[in-house]
Amino acid sequence: MYNMDKLYEAVAVKGHVCVGLDTAVDYIPPRERKAAASDADAVLAFNKALIDATIDAAACYKVQIAYYEELGLAGLTAYAETLRYLREQGALVIADIKRGDIADTALRYAKAHFDGDFEADFVTLSPYMGMDSIEPWISYAETKGKGAFVLMRTSNKGMRDFEYQELKNGGRLYDTVGDRLATLVESHKGAHGYGAFGAVVGCTERDEAAAIREKRGNLFFLIPGYGAQGGAADDAALLLREGNGGVVNASRSILKAWTTMPGAGDSVDNSFAAEAARKAAIEMRDAILRAI
Amino acid sequence: MYNMDKLYEAVAVKGHVCVGLDTAVDYIPPRERKAAASDADAVLAFNKALIDATIDAAACYKVQIAYYEELGLAGLTAYAETLRYLREQGALVIADIKRGDIADTALRYAKAHFDGDFEADFVTLSPYMGMDSIEPWISYAETKGKGAFVLMRTSNKGMRDFEYQELKNGGRLYDTVGDRLATLVESHKGAHGYGAFGAVVGCTERDEAAAIREKRGNLFFLIPGYGAQGGAADDAALLLREGNGGVVNASRSILKAWTTMPGAGDSVDNSFAAEAARKAAIEMRDAILRAI
Repeated sequence: MYNMDKLYEAVAVKGHVCVGLDTAVDYIPPRERKAAASDADAVLAFNKALIDATIDAAACYKVQIAYYEELGLAGLTAYAETLRYLREQGALVIADIKRGDIADTALRYAKAHFDGDFEADFVTLSPYMGMDSIEPWISYAETKGKGAFVLMRTSNKGMRDFEYQELKNGGRLYDTVGDRLATLVESHKGAHGYGAFGAVVGCTERDEAAAIREKRGNLFFLIPGYGAQGGAADDAALLLREGNGGVVNASRSILKAWTTMPGAGDSVDNSFAAEAARKAAIEMRDAILRAI
Repeated sequence: MYNMDKLYEAVAVKGHVCVGLDTAVDYIPPRERKAAASDADAVLAFNKALIDATIDAAACYKVQIAYYEELGLAGLTAYAETLRYLREQGALVIADIKRGDIADTALRYAKAHFDGDFEADFVTLSPYMGMDSIEPWISYAETKGKGAFVLMRTSNKGMRDFEYQELKNGGRLYDTVGDRLATLVESHKGAHGYGAFGAVVGCTERDEAAAIREKRGNLFFLIPGYGAQGGAADDAALLLREGNGGVVNASRSILKAWTTMPGAGDSVDNSFAAEAARKAAIEMRDAILRAI
């Protein structure tokens, strides 16, 4: 069984929310940050509180490694501990690492993120160098059910610079990435019709969303751009075929939900932030379910 | 002064070799690996021996983080220690991390790799998501002289999948990446006419090399593909304008040079491997100088 099948089933039960643990230290209640032995400890404690509070409202979690690397070795220890805690809770987790390197190097990365200290259920991958930067990872779909989301059409403004370039032979670059990925996963298709690997497709280009969903029948989507990046439930819904074609990530709008709650201030603690995160995740889940 | 200026000057004195410390544990003499307290310790000791032996024959070093991540937190400690040792020796070092993420995330990565535990002089970046995944890094060129090499046309076979796609408006995708990068660095140009940021251009497509070098006058190149990947000194020379337009990376052909030396076997030590690496680096340096 592929992790992508498990994710599909988690969505069916819990809705589409992917909680993004892009935990910057300045998102943490100042009182908790001050009380922690280190910033890395503060990040880990905050993450655990938010995981406990959101676990029944989230299909999965996405951990953006940049926010941990920023804190050096201590930060990467907190990253490893966050992944471990998520595993212990039985949560599915996407390591947002956007790796893209070839051959032997790709296999080293795959071992790093699908095994050992940094083991996750899914990773994100960047396709620029070509399919030999994607294919090595798929051996872990075969042996351990692991999954990946390959950057296809992202939600940032710069997406137009290269992903969106029109090709001489027709279509845009992201289309060709989608074509190659769709072909690759045909030989690694799970119980629900989706491949072991899916694609990152942002919900910020409304006019194309339905067509992309229609065309990419075997690709489960990781959908960024919701909330802080401007995407709304309606936009995300267009990318969710039959209501279960992907997960929708939100990071800041959940992590920082506490800052706009009544009673917010320097004296609140992680349980206050966790309760706010829970409310934000549930609201987001319900908004998406209504929009489908 | 930009680090790219320092690299130009290092090439002028020491030649074009960039020693790639893509140190897999199975490249290390078995006797040393067995004697070390851990694989990560074995990697660090091997690296130090090779750095000592090659420092006067190498313009710079490139450390491929995948080989360290593979060993988990202990591996990343060896990565940080390798970078620290290189700094202590006054060597220039490229962190081969191929990051490509946007806005706030890019800034977190930049802080991680241009400051603190993992500080390097240069990084490698992947442009797929667009220029908003490159631009945030350049603030570190302004404040600390830091540099980057952006993937443009790489040396792997899969390069043809996306980088090489012909665009509707003319040229190939890698051309458009080059255009955008050349424009970006015009406002960050150093003492020798090259920008603070350069490009990764492989030496495996001989017929295009001279044209790429001609067209990209303000981009210093990081040139992979030499040795184990099939590129030769003649191919690399085509990418080196006036003899000083880039550095040429070799990893396996230097790290594993000891395995083909007379007397190689399970009983040799790191000093044997280091001496072989030194010879391989000097031969490579001289072959490139002859080919220019």
